[in-house]
Amino acid sequence: MRILVVNVNTTESITQAIARSAQAVASAGTEIVGLTPFFGADSVEGNFESYLAAIAVMDRVMSYDQPFDAVIQAGYGEHGREGLQELLNVPVVDITDAAASTAMFLGHAYSVVTTLDRTVPLIEDRLKLSGLWDRCASVRASGLAVLELEHEPQRALEAIVQQAELAVTQDKAEVICLGCGGMAGLDEQIRRRTGVPVVDGVTAAVTIAESLVRLGLSTSKVRTYATPRPKQIIGWAERFAR
Amino acid sequence: MRILVVNVNTTESITQAIARSAQAVASAGTEIVGLTPFFGADSVEGNFESYLAAIAVMDRVMSYDQPFDAVIQAGYGEHGREGLQELLNVPVVDITDAAASTAMFLGHAYSVVTTLDRTVPLIEDRLKLSGLWDRCASVRASGLAVLELEHEPQRALEAIVQQAELAVTQDKAEVICLGCGGMAGLDEQIRRRTGVPVVDGVTAAVTIAESLVRLGLSTSKVRTYATPRPKQIIGWAERFAR
Amino acid sequence: MRILVVNVNTTESITQAIARSAQAVASAGTEIVGLTPFFGADSVEGNFESYLAAIAVMDRVMSYDQPFDAVIQAGYGEHGREGLQELLNVPVVDITDAAASTAMFLGHAYSVVTTLDRTVPLIEDRLKLSGLWDRCASVRASGLAVLELEHEPQRALEAIVQQAELAVTQDKAEVICLGCGGMAGLDEQIRRRTGVPVVDGVTAAVTIAESLVRLGLSTSKVRTYATPRPKQIIGWAERFAR
Amino acid sequence: MRILVVNVNTTESITQAIARSAQAVASAGTEIVGLTPFFGADSVEGNFESYLAAIAVMDRVMSYDQPFDAVIQAGYGEHGREGLQELLNVPVVDITDAAASTAMFLGHAYSVVTTLDRTVPLIEDRLKLSGLWDRCASVRASGLAVLELEHEPQRALEAIVQQAELAVTQDKAEVICLGCGGMAGLDEQIRRRTGVPVVDGVTAAVTIAESLVRLGLSTSKVRTYATPRPKQIIGWAERFAR
Amino acid sequence: MRILVVNVNTTESITQAIARSAQAVASAGTEIVGLTPFFGADSVEGNFESYLAAIAVMDRVMSYDQPFDAVIQAGYGEHGREGLQELLNVPVVDITDAAASTAMFLGHAYSVVTTLDRTVPLIEDRLKLSGLWDRCASVRASGLAVLELEHEPQRALEAIVQQAELAVTQDKAEVICLGCGGMAGLDEQIRRRTGVPVVDGVTAAVTIAESLVRLGLSTSKVRTYATPRPKQIIGWAERFAR
Amino acid sequence: MRILVVNVNTTESITQAIARSAQAVASAGTEIVGLTPFFGADSVEGNFESYLAAIAVMDRVMSYDQPFDAVIQAGYGEHGREGLQELLNVPVVDITDAAASTAMFLGHAYSVVTTLDRTVPLIEDRLKLSGLWDRCASVRASGLAVLELEHEPQRALEAIVQQAELAVTQDKAEVICLGCGGMAGLDEQIRRRTGVPVVDGVTAAVTIAESLVRLGLSTSKVRTYATPRPKQIIGWAERFAR
Repeated sequence: MRILVVNVNTTESITQAIARSAQAVASAGTEIVGLTPFFGADSVEGNFESYLAAIAVMDRVMSYDQPFDAVIQAGYGEHGREGLQELLNVPVVDITDAAASTAMFLGHAYSVVTTLDRTVPLIEDRLKLSGLWDRCASVRASGLAVLELEHEPQRALEAIVQQAELAVTQDKAEVICLGCGGMAGLDEQIRRRTGVPVVDGVTAAVTIAESLVRLGLSTSKVRTYATPRPKQIIGWAERFAR
Repeated sequence: MRILVVNVNTTESITQAIARSAQAVASAGTEIVGLTPFFGADSVEGNFESYLAAIAVMDRVMSYDQPFDAVIQAGYGEHGREGLQELLNVPVVDITDAAASTAMFLGHAYSVVTTLDRTVPLIEDRLKLSGLWDRCASVRASGLAVLELEHEPQRALEAIVQQAELAVTQDKAEVICLGCGGMAGLDEQIRRRTGVPVVDGVTAAVTIAESLVRLGLSTSKVRTYATPRPKQIIGWAERFAR
Repeated sequence: MRILVVNVNTTESITQAIARSAQAVASAGTEIVGLTPFFGADSVEGNFESYLAAIAVMDRVMSYDQPFDAVIQAGYGEHGREGLQELLNVPVVDITDAAASTAMFLGHAYSVVTTLDRTVPLIEDRLKLSGLWDRCASVRASGLAVLELEHEPQRALEAIVQQAELAVTQDKAEVICLGCGGMAGLDEQIRRRTGVPVVDGVTAAVTIAESLVRLGLSTSKVRTYATPRPKQIIGWAERFAR
Repeated sequence: MRILVVNVNTTESITQAIARSAQAVASAGTEIVGLTPFFGADSVEGNFESYLAAIAVMDRVMSYDQPFDAVIQAGYGEHGREGLQELLNVPVVDITDAAASTAMFLGHAYSVVTTLDRTVPLIEDRLKLSGLWDRCASVRASGLAVLELEHEPQRALEAIVQQAELAVTQDKAEVICLGCGGMAGLDEQIRRRTGVPVVDGVTAAVTIAESLVRLGLSTSKVRTYATPRPKQIIGWAERFAR
Repeated sequence: MRILVVNVNTTESITQAIARSAQAVASAGTEIVGLTPFFGADSVEGNFESYLAAIAVMDRVMSYDQPFDAVIQAGYGEHGREGLQELLNVPVVDITDAAASTAMFLGHAYSVVTTLDRTVPLIEDRLKLSGLWDRCASVRASGLAVLELEHEPQRALEAIVQQAELAVTQDKAEVICLGCGGMAGLDEQIRRRTGVPVVDGVTAAVTIAESLVRLGLSTSKVRTYATPRPKQIIGWAERFAR
Repeated sequence: MRILVVNVNTTESITQAIARSAQAVASAGTEIVGLTPFFGADSVEGNFESYLAAIAVMDRVMSYDQPFDAVIQAGYGEHGREGLQELLNVPVVDITDAAASTAMFLGHAYSVVTTLDRTVPLIEDRLKLSGLWDRCASVRASGLAVLELEHEPQRALEAIVQQAELAVTQDKAEVICLGCGGMAGLDEQIRRRTGVPVVDGVTAAVTIAESLVRLGLSTSKVRTYATPRPKQIIGWAERFAR
């Protein structure tokens, strides 16, 4: 089984870290392919960059010329998953949904700890659209930007632990979701520090993608995610025309 | 005052019809500029095309080299408004929100009549995100594609009237919103046929945009829609780099 | 175009201030007529007074013997708007709805800062009924009574700014609505102090009322707001009999 | 114990029927006093009349010069209960709430069958404000006006039974609430015809009012329903000044 | 009229205290019978014990060999009420629902003060299922276990008062519900200390059970709470076979 | 890895069918152990039987004397999962949640098709408590009892397909969940007949349980599902005392 794990930003080192993390939890026989978009921002921390990433992820996946069995969109709280679901016949798993969905099997309420405060409303909105919001106790910002996370892992760890503890004591979360693809790999340390289960969306998504493939299930094509109708597509986007 | 009215598809004739409709209701002294994206699909009827349009609209607006006072995104239920709000300092009005917001002043509940059934969930989701869903009685599909609307206005009218009547009698709507930018201009006929107020998002958006400008109000930059942080943007999207 | 702006209390000086504020933002050609109810309390700060105001406002409007194009009910969070909508064929705009509806075009969430704590639940309930509650971050009380606002503007300003700042930092509001008709005119100062858009319901209502008239839209008469059925009305209320 | 049961319309025969129905279920030692407002419409079927009734009920109760232990507002889905709660220190029970609250002890979901379709949104809104909406399967209109109910009891019975049956089979209601004070006394027949429990708000309210008195409980005065602040009240409403 | 009041734990002294409290508020002619389950835990403070209690309460009631008119389940936030409703034809009143339902007649919002923090989510969930959650301001834990409540009434009182005061000042509750059957009898003292109405579920349930019997109302058998279908029941549970 | 799959009824043949279905999808190296409760009803179709099953499942699992890595509760919409989560340190997966959670990765909305109409509210309530209700389009009953399903598979298939088709066309479901443990194995046929993805809770639960174990995640013990406090447990239930 081959699973594409697509980063939403153009920072190659983050793609590699995500892919490593994904491969570590993949079943024997599952090949993880990390993909970096051909265009977009080096970190995604807001709507403009997220919309850009939505198209960049679709573009990157459609340009991949080998067969694959599932796609993981490895950005937390980003736009675009629905577009991928229309374009593809294989399952698409967003790490936002994967983490929340997994957390709900582990506790009565979960919180998300993410990067900058400005991304909190995006995450909240995506969870609402995915129908996974009801048991969300809070979305909290560590205050660190995506690339700071990448460059200062120890400071990131402390900032995330601090918010995770507030989530547990004040917001009554019983599980913590790591709210950034770039946090992959920190889960074990945060779990030890906080005493509650910590879910990393990337590894959770790998097991869910594998499960869907194993169960022979994929996106319903009956309505919302039906294959796009034939269109005349012009300009730069012509590459999407088929 | 200059207001940019941006079509979400690349069909120039639809842009012109929307702009005409907008100009007809604009105040003396307001100049309406209709813009067509440089890339994308000739009609937008699903998530893939809508995400493409999100970026295409941002691209088109950012490429406009004259001053302007407000922007109207003239697609019903489409992605992207939040990105524009980040990129711009002037007010941004989406016709989805404009129609719903206006309808809520006119009746206890409103329905939207749109084009194809597959777009219904997109519209529902956008209304939920905008916080304008509570008084929505239903979103109904006429079954006509965007370009059929353009080419067969009479058949479109009948199909819309039929769904509008069902919305009133079965779903208890008291106001109808026209759920497609391409329906601009049909409101008066549908109002006569159904006996309830009919709101066209394009004209509603013009009055709202003018009102915001007149009141000296624009997008809050304090959190969700703060100006994007400086990023390294590569590839095709480099044109967004500043 | 003539718009009636009806105060909910019987304090004439507040009526005048509201009318001045409304006229200042009205289009050329729009005449604002400020009306004070013939009966009721000198300030409205609770359900009893608000219900009294509901009838007093209807009574005052029905007694107005000149033609008019729209009515603005200039009390924040008060009862009665639905009754006016039944009695009239022209649009009715409540400043509670006008402010919230406008605020939602400007930010992801808004807060209301009002007068006394006891009025907070009334405002919350009215926003819920109007379907404009979803994006409300909080309703906060400045602790000042309506007439204190009138008599001690500087103290009022400080108290409102303090709560507005808490709304932004703690409740994550991105826009502030002024939750009292008597606060008209303070918006600009509060905006400067807080750095977020501040919406005054009276001026917002003027632009919305003008917009509805311009669009040829008025209250749906198909169900909830249908003209009252012929009734035998006795006692003091006979003046409403037609 | 003396309980005032206040009709919302000015039709004396309805007041008497309601009072009879209330007395029939009252405990030994409970005196029911039926009151008819001094002003207002002979039947209440919409917002204008309901707002008028809100004040008329408060006026009638405040004019009652004997001691009393509780007040029942005997109109279904009407405005005004909150005002009474402010003005009085004894418990106030609205029959809308009484019926819904009682029905929720009897089944998983309940429906209301009321008079005219135009009153359905009022009832829905009142149930929402009272926090009793979650288990409401539907509010259905029999199509009969209040006075038709009074004059054509057999036709009324059939129309109510028909809607009650639809509520059970289509909307999955397990209990029916009679949605009009004037339906008092029909509960037993409708129960026999439909096979589900039928709750009449008037009799339910009597037992709830008695219970509150017996438990020594009354309206909280700490915030929303605090006694009105001293105000200068002018004009016709001066009678409310104390 | 005979009402069974069933404790959810096996501590006989708590059963007696509950029964005394119930009898004190019962009408003349109402006999209260306190029942202790034949099996289960000496206090119920979590899901395992609560599920055990659910069956133990059903078992105890089914073993009672005298006629009775209503059953009160005297545990706050416990499982099982729906099972009793299926098994019995007489009304079943859970004290969780009784307290919340009563509180909603007394104020705009209510809070529950219970025992241990771990039981808070159970209470919240039960209130949600009962449709009585909308007006709940908060569920707060006093930090005392059920048996500490029993053995250290003064310390319990202080801890409950402290949380009740926070509920009023911070969560904006206007009424307090005592969130444990074992708190019966403390209501009057807490009311004096906090200045807001305090509802004890046990006494509230007695008046509601009496009211339902008096009104001739009982559980709807049409769907959710229909009598269980004939089943082959084996093992220990055979005693439930009929 | 050893996963216990516990039937909720005492019909051994159903346990075996469920276990076979689970084993068929389990990874190499995963041992599925099917367990039948020692007591309870031969089929579970309502609250009484479901509460009995809750305890019976806990009892059966606690009596199992070999090590195990996860537990699957194989009843759809049944009580009890929270108790198991308290008693165990390994992950607990309910098939109701497993199916819904999986379905949400496949389409915009899902429906459940279950057995008898009387069980529909139980399933709805469990989905609400699990926070998986938002994207549920409907829960529909096939009208067949659990044991009819067992004995008349072809008739069951037809009845389920019929409701699944209505769910898709009328309720706008895009995915179908099989709402009974005894439907395991029918998914492929129903998928072929309806053209939409069909999720069987048992097989979905196996992949989720395996995933949680693989990720090293288990139930949070910080609050709701903390290990039960030491209690004195008497009577039949003494077997739970430790």
